[in-house]
Amino acid sequence: MVKVGVVGYGVIGQRLADGVALQKDMELVGVADVGLTLPVMALKEKGMIYDFYLAVPENQDEVEAYGIPVSGSLEDLVQKVDIVLDATSAGVGAKNKEIYEKYGKKAVFQGGEKTSVADVFFHGYANYEHGIGKQFLKLTSCNTTGLIRSVDCLDREIGIDNVIITIIRRVADPGDYHRGLTNALKVDPVPNHQAVDLMLIMPHVKATGVLVHTPVTHGHIISVVAKPKRETTKEEILQVFEAHPRIRVVRLADGFLGNASLFRYARDLGNPRGDMYEIAVWEETVTVFEDRIVYAINIPQEAVVIPETMDAIRASMKMQTDRLEAVGVTNRYLNLGR
Amino acid sequence: MVKVGVVGYGVIGQRLADGVALQKDMELVGVADVGLTLPVMALKEKGMIYDFYLAVPENQDEVEAYGIPVSGSLEDLVQKVDIVLDATSAGVGAKNKEIYEKYGKKAVFQGGEKTSVADVFFHGYANYEHGIGKQFLKLTSCNTTGLIRSVDCLDREIGIDNVIITIIRRVADPGDYHRGLTNALKVDPVPNHQAVDLMLIMPHVKATGVLVHTPVTHGHIISVVAKPKRETTKEEILQVFEAHPRIRVVRLADGFLGNASLFRYARDLGNPRGDMYEIAVWEETVTVFEDRIVYAINIPQEAVVIPETMDAIRASMKMQTDRLEAVGVTNRYLNLGR
Amino acid sequence: MVKVGVVGYGVIGQRLADGVALQKDMELVGVADVGLTLPVMALKEKGMIYDFYLAVPENQDEVEAYGIPVSGSLEDLVQKVDIVLDATSAGVGAKNKEIYEKYGKKAVFQGGEKTSVADVFFHGYANYEHGIGKQFLKLTSCNTTGLIRSVDCLDREIGIDNVIITIIRRVADPGDYHRGLTNALKVDPVPNHQAVDLMLIMPHVKATGVLVHTPVTHGHIISVVAKPKRETTKEEILQVFEAHPRIRVVRLADGFLGNASLFRYARDLGNPRGDMYEIAVWEETVTVFEDRIVYAINIPQEAVVIPETMDAIRASMKMQTDRLEAVGVTNRYLNLGR
Amino acid sequence: MVKVGVVGYGVIGQRLADGVALQKDMELVGVADVGLTLPVMALKEKGMIYDFYLAVPENQDEVEAYGIPVSGSLEDLVQKVDIVLDATSAGVGAKNKEIYEKYGKKAVFQGGEKTSVADVFFHGYANYEHGIGKQFLKLTSCNTTGLIRSVDCLDREIGIDNVIITIIRRVADPGDYHRGLTNALKVDPVPNHQAVDLMLIMPHVKATGVLVHTPVTHGHIISVVAKPKRETTKEEILQVFEAHPRIRVVRLADGFLGNASLFRYARDLGNPRGDMYEIAVWEETVTVFEDRIVYAINIPQEAVVIPETMDAIRASMKMQTDRLEAVGVTNRYLNLGR
Repeated sequence: MVKVGVVGYGVIGQRLADGVALQKDMELVGVADVGLTLPVMALKEKGMIYDFYLAVPENQDEVEAYGIPVSGSLEDLVQKVDIVLDATSAGVGAKNKEIYEKYGKKAVFQGGEKTSVADVFFHGYANYEHGIGKQFLKLTSCNTTGLIRSVDCLDREIGIDNVIITIIRRVADPGDYHRGLTNALKVDPVPNHQAVDLMLIMPHVKATGVLVHTPVTHGHIISVVAKPKRETTKEEILQVFEAHPRIRVVRLADGFLGNASLFRYARDLGNPRGDMYEIAVWEETVTVFEDRIVYAINIPQEAVVIPETMDAIRASMKMQTDRLEAVGVTNRYLNLGR
Repeated sequence: MVKVGVVGYGVIGQRLADGVALQKDMELVGVADVGLTLPVMALKEKGMIYDFYLAVPENQDEVEAYGIPVSGSLEDLVQKVDIVLDATSAGVGAKNKEIYEKYGKKAVFQGGEKTSVADVFFHGYANYEHGIGKQFLKLTSCNTTGLIRSVDCLDREIGIDNVIITIIRRVADPGDYHRGLTNALKVDPVPNHQAVDLMLIMPHVKATGVLVHTPVTHGHIISVVAKPKRETTKEEILQVFEAHPRIRVVRLADGFLGNASLFRYARDLGNPRGDMYEIAVWEETVTVFEDRIVYAINIPQEAVVIPETMDAIRASMKMQTDRLEAVGVTNRYLNLGR
Repeated sequence: MVKVGVVGYGVIGQRLADGVALQKDMELVGVADVGLTLPVMALKEKGMIYDFYLAVPENQDEVEAYGIPVSGSLEDLVQKVDIVLDATSAGVGAKNKEIYEKYGKKAVFQGGEKTSVADVFFHGYANYEHGIGKQFLKLTSCNTTGLIRSVDCLDREIGIDNVIITIIRRVADPGDYHRGLTNALKVDPVPNHQAVDLMLIMPHVKATGVLVHTPVTHGHIISVVAKPKRETTKEEILQVFEAHPRIRVVRLADGFLGNASLFRYARDLGNPRGDMYEIAVWEETVTVFEDRIVYAINIPQEAVVIPETMDAIRASMKMQTDRLEAVGVTNRYLNLGR
Repeated sequence: MVKVGVVGYGVIGQRLADGVALQKDMELVGVADVGLTLPVMALKEKGMIYDFYLAVPENQDEVEAYGIPVSGSLEDLVQKVDIVLDATSAGVGAKNKEIYEKYGKKAVFQGGEKTSVADVFFHGYANYEHGIGKQFLKLTSCNTTGLIRSVDCLDREIGIDNVIITIIRRVADPGDYHRGLTNALKVDPVPNHQAVDLMLIMPHVKATGVLVHTPVTHGHIISVVAKPKRETTKEEILQVFEAHPRIRVVRLADGFLGNASLFRYARDLGNPRGDMYEIAVWEETVTVFEDRIVYAINIPQEAVVIPETMDAIRASMKMQTDRLEAVGVTNRYLNLGR
């Protein structure tokens, strides 16, 4: 049993903890955060299903006064685990790294950290082999993780020369009050960082793209224009997507009208928090046009990186050395690829 | 075991079914809808946890082709149950009533139906006695249900002469594509229907109010100005609210900044669909000003009516004849009033 | 002086009337609508700067009671003009066409009508020659009008083989209450109608694309991936755009961060209604990538079709027979191409 | 001719400059800002209708490179005027005050500054007399300015004992990218600052209230519950409002459905920037309920403070010593009270 700790118990950290708890070959030792946040209050209301470690000792009185037992400090947690999933705010992970190094522990950072924080920039499906045995891995961000799922599987089957993407980015998560946008679309310079990141993970594919921020809280939508290396058909592309355990092919005609339909559907599935790990591809958008493939995908930004982070633990801890075996175990425990 | 059927398996119907399934003295016979909607597809993906009855026989082929077994027609379901929870679109319930009458079955309608459809307009806490043994009950709408919870408990403890409310209404549910509002607030004439409905349930209280539609999908917020019949204090009001199993007192200072914080918190609690049955009162808004009480509440529109609908079954079926005993059983099974 | 009438005095009709009033070689005879709408009330408050004709005689009492003199019926207006600009709701124009035919008058329809209503589907810059002398012309819709401006000028200078577009569509205009979307993105099937329409106007260019509806009220944003017929550079593309009187090249670095910046800037310019006739191209998005040109444009949906509609009058009435001369006169009177 | 300078040429500053330019007994000497912002670029495109002074000399090269002549420094502008309208960002005005004091000039600050910055907290209609001859005045904020218009006129005619308000606050202006909220309502503690500010201007009226931030960019809406000192009727209240030159009584039945209708209507009126100086009261919300008056108003946040700021100049400069004479001159020049 690989012992895992989650540092930073926010939107991503909570989901990572739940994801680890589902992996039968891993043990979640505990979660750490800085004080009495809403997720920590929810953890208490749920009966302290995970042990809580306090990263800022000054807040111990407040936390305990709320009825939350403190199992130790951040360093205490780090010492008890084999690997840390760091889901702190951007920039904090780089500081925490000193602690991980001090105790010789491994760590997986999320997409908000600088790429230089890690030994390898990682995606479970696209470059699993690069992560094997590495001490520090950084996951791709939510958009890039989902995008690469779709490009990687096409690339392995059909070959992809280059992609031009238009990202229609949700600007906040449900419940965010620290950021937002009201009745405005915001444009980023070309290329966006997701295209650049894709090229870091898949250096044999060229990429660029436009990014527009939109005032919604549910999934990002990405329109992809990909140049295949050989002729293909809509049917073949759909088969490739349907065979992928982390991609759902959905239909406008069935009522999946956009990102909000998928959010509602995931809630109706009874998933914890109404989360969805899979990206979705709209069947009616998949098109072969001239020498290009066109399609649109939905990225559920809160949960999409959970499976690939589980993969990262597997790679770093050498739990599996074969890419497909590794992602397959993750998928089985997360109930992906029905 | 009272046998219950749910007719209309949408936003409310799904939650009613889950609510009934939690009541240990009730049996959910099945759910009915018109065809292959997203909730029905989710039911299939969840392994057909409830039996499905098809209200429009013409759609049987399509439904079965999707792999969903059809347990019978709407009339089949009605015949098997003691009471129907009708959660169809506004106006459909009035038509379905003919079927319920044909088989001499009881039914509870939701707030979208006309009040004349039922023998009694019902709220579990405020007028439970009026519903006892009645064949047809209509629930108050989501805003009115939550509002009355707060006014009724104050009225029973302190006495309330009149209320003036300002409803800041969310305009769509998460996932709605058939209605919406974009960058606009919309004003309704005074009085709004919730004030009128409150007076129907609590005829000894006078009420009026303003309603403004806002382009958000999470909970309604209501600002209440209530005239108490005697002097009171902020402390007493908070005690009354805190003692209510279906009211949460929350604090801005803890991070409950608005309706979206509560939505996120409920998801983090791991509740099915991230639902919350309780209304919330913000402690920092509770004020005694001159001869008035002022406070603001949050109404989680998707789930708030579930407990009172369970109460309605209890009243109609004479499962309990005492108000507090009845709501107490509902609360216990729904894990309310920790 | 060509005599012009505007039928339908709403979002587009008001702007058409103002546009015609600025053309020194045209006379605005009057505007027509069905009754006492907000734009008609605003016309009254502005001192009846245009004569008003009433299309629904039953409403005459109400209109006159508000203090608005009625100059005649819809047929009265039609008889007095050489050409009608029909800006009624989609489908109404097709009915009105019978009146225009009855009196042998010319008419220009807007993009909401079916293409079959007209003799020619028209864009001032792209196919002016096709409209010369025609009785019935239909303008391209707002997105298509703006998109074609950018593709046509590139095509004339560099040659364009095909385009793949991603339209991020605003879902309502400021002030709309009859439609909207709340916290949701909505996806359309591929190809969108704008790509199809582009091919009708520019049959030598192939086109497809994705369309995503977003809950904002300001300009549409289109991300364009175009295949040029020869090598080009960012500098050349910017020169082509900068030379176009109906295209503004703007910079993110200057503070033009998105569609809302452009809306505010146009208001600050003191333009009537804060309108902008020009589309905008963000300089930082213009990119040459592999064998493709990439750029993003803003479409001010309320006003963008006004110049091309003026061009349509010129073509239909044979006021100018040379394309560049015609658009040049329109531009001069609308103060475009400073 | 009173010589006026505007310092801070943003959303409010631009409108103040336009407002001063309309006052025939004032001269707008110039406007000042820190560098090349979008409003300054718009000023250039409009042909430098106002002289521009540069508050940050380091930016002179950039400003002049854009083709904008610099008429001098901030201190240069201050020396040339009798009174400054300071519309800088909150907190900057307090620093600028040192410059105004250095040259012995008068100044009017906007609502974002602390009240202590000024000798008097001012509202043209409610406490004009307090501002007469004062060196430093601070205007009420947009919500408070509009709210007081309505409470003051009722108070003068009927007498008002206390008010309880619910403010539904727009969270950003059109074009704002530095703040916003997405699909969330945010609650403030009771009382809100507008109630407190009202009591500072009208110390004989008690006030409290709830404030909820909403993700829209058009006018604030305030629901008012006021206790009159004597019996009144809906008719009397409407008469009082209709007699006020800075209040518009509008009807839902006419199509004024909310804040966005008013925004659109003002654009259609052809007002510069589509601005509206008047608040609006919805006739269908005006109600006498028990011992209270209820009504709802719209506050056009970008322009509402312009008239009262003109009044402030009149008071400070002793241009008029009679309240009604002063506001009457402002109204005449701004074309209010048709």
